[in-house]
Amino acid sequence: MNTSMIRYILGYVLKIQSLLMILPFLVSLIYREPQGACYLAVSLIGMLLGMLMTWRKASDPVFYLKEGCIATSLSWILMSLYGCLPFWLTKEIPSFTDALFETISGFTTTGASILNNVEGLSHCALFWRSFTHWIGGMGVLVFLLAVIPLSGGSNINLMRAESPGPSVGKLVPKIRHTARILYMIYFGLTVLQLVLLLLGKMPLFDAITTTFGTAGTGGFGIKNDSLMSYSPYIQWVVTIFMILFGVNFNVYYLLLFKKFKNAFSMEEVRYYLLIIGAAIGIIFFNILGTAANAFDALTHSSFQVASIITTTGFSTVDFNLWPESCRFVLVLLMFIGACAGSTGGGIKVSRIVIMIKNIGKELNSYIHPKSVKTINFENKPLDSEILNSINIYFITFTVVFTVSLFLLSIEGHDLITNFTAVTATINNIGPGLELVGPTCNFNGFSNFSKYILMFDMLAGRLEMFPLLILFHPSVWKDALSQKFSRE
Amino acid sequence: MNTSMIRYILGYVLKIQSLLMILPFLVSLIYREPQGACYLAVSLIGMLLGMLMTWRKASDPVFYLKEGCIATSLSWILMSLYGCLPFWLTKEIPSFTDALFETISGFTTTGASILNNVEGLSHCALFWRSFTHWIGGMGVLVFLLAVIPLSGGSNINLMRAESPGPSVGKLVPKIRHTARILYMIYFGLTVLQLVLLLLGKMPLFDAITTTFGTAGTGGFGIKNDSLMSYSPYIQWVVTIFMILFGVNFNVYYLLLFKKFKNAFSMEEVRYYLLIIGAAIGIIFFNILGTAANAFDALTHSSFQVASIITTTGFSTVDFNLWPESCRFVLVLLMFIGACAGSTGGGIKVSRIVIMIKNIGKELNSYIHPKSVKTINFENKPLDSEILNSINIYFITFTVVFTVSLFLLSIEGHDLITNFTAVTATINNIGPGLELVGPTCNFNGFSNFSKYILMFDMLAGRLEMFPLLILFHPSVWKDALSQKFSRE
Repeated sequence: MNTSMIRYILGYVLKIQSLLMILPFLVSLIYREPQGACYLAVSLIGMLLGMLMTWRKASDPVFYLKEGCIATSLSWILMSLYGCLPFWLTKEIPSFTDALFETISGFTTTGASILNNVEGLSHCALFWRSFTHWIGGMGVLVFLLAVIPLSGGSNINLMRAESPGPSVGKLVPKIRHTARILYMIYFGLTVLQLVLLLLGKMPLFDAITTTFGTAGTGGFGIKNDSLMSYSPYIQWVVTIFMILFGVNFNVYYLLLFKKFKNAFSMEEVRYYLLIIGAAIGIIFFNILGTAANAFDALTHSSFQVASIITTTGFSTVDFNLWPESCRFVLVLLMFIGACAGSTGGGIKVSRIVIMIKNIGKELNSYIHPKSVKTINFENKPLDSEILNSINIYFITFTVVFTVSLFLLSIEGHDLITNFTAVTATINNIGPGLELVGPTCNFNGFSNFSKYILMFDMLAGRLEMFPLLILFHPSVWKDALSQKFSRE
Repeated sequence: MNTSMIRYILGYVLKIQSLLMILPFLVSLIYREPQGACYLAVSLIGMLLGMLMTWRKASDPVFYLKEGCIATSLSWILMSLYGCLPFWLTKEIPSFTDALFETISGFTTTGASILNNVEGLSHCALFWRSFTHWIGGMGVLVFLLAVIPLSGGSNINLMRAESPGPSVGKLVPKIRHTARILYMIYFGLTVLQLVLLLLGKMPLFDAITTTFGTAGTGGFGIKNDSLMSYSPYIQWVVTIFMILFGVNFNVYYLLLFKKFKNAFSMEEVRYYLLIIGAAIGIIFFNILGTAANAFDALTHSSFQVASIITTTGFSTVDFNLWPESCRFVLVLLMFIGACAGSTGGGIKVSRIVIMIKNIGKELNSYIHPKSVKTINFENKPLDSEILNSINIYFITFTVVFTVSLFLLSIEGHDLITNFTAVTATINNIGPGLELVGPTCNFNGFSNFSKYILMFDMLAGRLEMFPLLILFHPSVWKDALSQKFSRE
């Protein structure tokens, strides 16, 4: 195993993160908050450590999928351990477990919080908390790919391990170039939303943090009531941008290169919009009777649907109190999730569509046993390897989900709380139902349960296998034997 | 499509069922119940109709998997429609929907009831109700295969559509012979349990109906409190026989032919027993504190685990009141289910084991991308087609489950009631949690929801595809075009 290359990448991740931690320090200068010193100190230590780790270049720059997965999951764990330090050292989140939970929730763009009173945090903490969403949304390693040169094989293996969705096929050839363009699109959309929010007279600090939460489809708010108290204009801007950030970024890539026809014919995006439309329709008619007026019902149903399917997790209303069928639709959307290649989580629309097509194919094989029907997606036939890996992904997801649910059930909360807590973390959404509903938080869980949920957030963001691989005995045997052979 | 052959098979099923309906009539003679006349009348009409349908032999005896599936699912629907008539006509279950629900629940060996007061039924109704379990457990078509000669291809296609589990490979060659032996084993075990129950001083009528419920892994009791009021000896006999009827019948087949080594090395059965042991252990330690003594805790935990994993659904205690982790274990067992080739339902142990092995294989492919690892089960390598069909089965199961849950949620019951109601019906168990817990019943649902749950019971028993195929447009187009071309 190429451990020196993994060490090098981890060092680089630390360096990037230290630089990014300067921003909350600058925020603290503006608001004259003493906590800022802590961010600066942690940033300097991280930079030093990162420089030490990258001092010696990797002896061999080539590495394989296994190393790509390990480097990716270790990066995310390191980022979280490092990123939670300011919360903990400033005592704004006194428990280390809680600080780590909040940071993992940030980077994985989950947005599940353990804070009872968000409004009590300093501005620099609020900024860093929301900023982790923005960093995690596009992925740190994609950023790394955009700035440092790695040999070809290493690039694709890192990209494959970090990018959400079944395949990054199309964008592969010029990966460094692609990573840069993706970040440009991400940055461009972020700025656009910020401007539109400012036009709606949202205060600058609120607008920046809300935009971070939207762009990363994260969901941390800076108010205890999330986005309930903002104007309908602001709520609609956020609704639209949540949907936009849940779209497969290939669409923007194609639009940028003026391939309009290809961009508008993307099957995944059409299903994504169709599901959003249907869900809004169902919820709209269910809450129409109890809403103040039709516009209000439309605003709330659209906002909540967009927030949940894109796995953002903002809320403008306590949907835990909605009728059972609405609650069910929202839970279903939590699993479906956004498009592959977006910043959103969940199982992804493309996987769901392909799995349903696969059922149709199986039914067909009962009727015409001899005909071999291929499944087309995005106008291309899918080979059996991709179909198989999607099926296994789903099964793995279910197994991890079930084991987590079992471990959570030991604590004795009710089944809906446990079920939606796992749903909300493994799909990177944030709020669930009952005790983890939109007006509550995850502080009611024990530390043991919190670590289970942290694992779920990471497993969901990295799409299972890169994280699970760390538990494979051969990986440790490999790493240890290498260490001893060198000594 | 070979409609004349389907007509012929349906007629035969009707004839067999009419004969079986003589038994409850005989019971009514013993207890001098007027309702018996109704069973006799229905039986005679059914016989007449069946004879009309089988009067003309099928023009072409060969048919394919498609026809096998259609014949199977139509048989089960016909059996249920016909079998519910006595309940409805005697007004013991005044609503037709309820009578149909109870009958489908019987034949599919689910055991979910809509009756508030079971003890108010006549003996002949109680007998027929429990007898449907025994008939449905081994399958009517398997019985049909044992008694009437069909050409080779037809046999295997019927068997494949009705038998639970991923494959009936081993027993294929002499299918008629096999069907007879399976019924002999089934009959032998039934008699053995009956004798053991009678030795425990259980009244004859109670012993017969309880044995029917155990053998078919059904779960209809003749007391309102299921098996709570019987002695521990009787509860233990039922526990052991529930476990025995959940074992893959291949084991008994092999034992019968003195292939002891093969019989005891069956991987599925070993995992099945392992899961049972682990579940009993977890629940035992969780309820030890609140139980009267250790023996009581062991009796209740063993009984409930055996009842749920084999999808029988008897109960000796209200497990809805158990701690959350015990409730979760039971719900998990509902999904796992018994062995393939047993009378039990659920997803089946073999499918679960193979899916988990498949995850291991996928993880391995990340570590050694070039090595092609095959999965062994029962000491044989599985080909990719079987693996794939198991994955798709699981996905189809999940989709049917989700759609049912959505349709049920319209009615507005709480999520746990809805979730466990679908779980208990699609896996053919019977009781769930909360409003459908072991001391409650399914009468609280609307007729619409009841039809959804009836569909789930049939879909679960027939393992999805044979039933789903009825909704494929090409099947109807085929049948209609044939009809018109003949006219």
